[in-house]
Amino acid sequence: MPASEGPGRRRDPEVDRRIAQAALEVFADTGWAGFAMETVARRAGVGKASLYLRWSSKETLLTDAVTLRLARVFDADTGTLHGDLVKLAGQVLDIYTGSTGRAASRLTLEAAAIPGVAAHYDAMRASQRHAARAIVRRGIDRGEVAANVSVTLLLETLVGGAMMHALTAPPAQHAALAADTTGYAVRLVDFLLDAVTTQTAH
Amino acid sequence: MPASEGPGRRRDPEVDRRIAQAALEVFADTGWAGFAMETVARRAGVGKASLYLRWSSKETLLTDAVTLRLARVFDADTGTLHGDLVKLAGQVLDIYTGSTGRAASRLTLEAAAIPGVAAHYDAMRASQRHAARAIVRRGIDRGEVAANVSVTLLLETLVGGAMMHALTAPPAQHAALAADTTGYAVRLVDFLLDAVTTQTAH
Repeated sequence: MPASEGPGRRRDPEVDRRIAQAALEVFADTGWAGFAMETVARRAGVGKASLYLRWSSKETLLTDAVTLRLARVFDADTGTLHGDLVKLAGQVLDIYTGSTGRAASRLTLEAAAIPGVAAHYDAMRASQRHAARAIVRRGIDRGEVAANVSVTLLLETLVGGAMMHALTAPPAQHAALAADTTGYAVRLVDFLLDAVTTQTAH
Repeated sequence: MPASEGPGRRRDPEVDRRIAQAALEVFADTGWAGFAMETVARRAGVGKASLYLRWSSKETLLTDAVTLRLARVFDADTGTLHGDLVKLAGQVLDIYTGSTGRAASRLTLEAAAIPGVAAHYDAMRASQRHAARAIVRRGIDRGEVAANVSVTLLLETLVGGAMMHALTAPPAQHAALAADTTGYAVRLVDFLLDAVTTQTAH
């Protein structure tokens, strides 16, 4: 019997994963107002004691679930501004069309008001913003866009446009969109890079 | 004594307004999971009987509160595409930076899952989408943009960018942003119209 399956107090990563997934689903369904250790335990099919053995509070449980299970925006360095922005838009679409998309939306809305989760979420957001800005800065360094490009407008319209597209897609189109996020990402980036190119030519 | 203050069964519009406002605040704070007639009555400072006299269910209460108190996007016909889009972006910023912004975000996230609210919300969204598309169509008719402009991309980046800007603004900047939504709206529209103008010149 492998050590990880032994009867001792060693934690089973598969149980951790199952609890984290259940935590995100409960949070997606009810938000913080309905987020309770008991509800998460029932959803994960584990006992409450098993949950408290791992997490002492719902704040630490939600924070760990977000860290373990929620996809996030990261810096994909493809070598070109166009390629990097397509990756970035694709990541945003993947997050909001995927199974944890509703948990991600909830977090945007509620994180600031949850003590013990707010700081962790702020740090995650800051790191994502940093990754996105690094993409545009490399484009400036390579001369692909002018140094005076509005980094904020470019990223807010890119990320906001992708989020809007995912959140307003009718349920019937969700599967098709999730299967081809790159197609929309390319059209979105082509559209926005035209704006940047014109502006720098003024 | 005016009739509206009389002891009869005539409804006082000021009480209606106060209840609707309280309903939006409770919904903003807790979402549908924490939305209860009793909580709304307490927040509005009225008795539960007074609430049930007006609304028989929390579904109809929330629907009416949204209709009565939530600002929405409407078609402002200023005569130019630039002017109309600035109004549209300004409305989106006003909604999400205003006092009912969190209720609006909640609705985006939860409406589809609330029976009796979903259909009303869908109709409201359809009417807003119709208003936004009418703006671009008039711009096409006046020759301000080419007929093959991507209406969807233009509106998704405009509305998504404005929403993103409002939702990610640090709390310390909220008041300044709310006081000058037009300033950002103009920069956003200038940025995006450059994209459209280039594309039509291809």
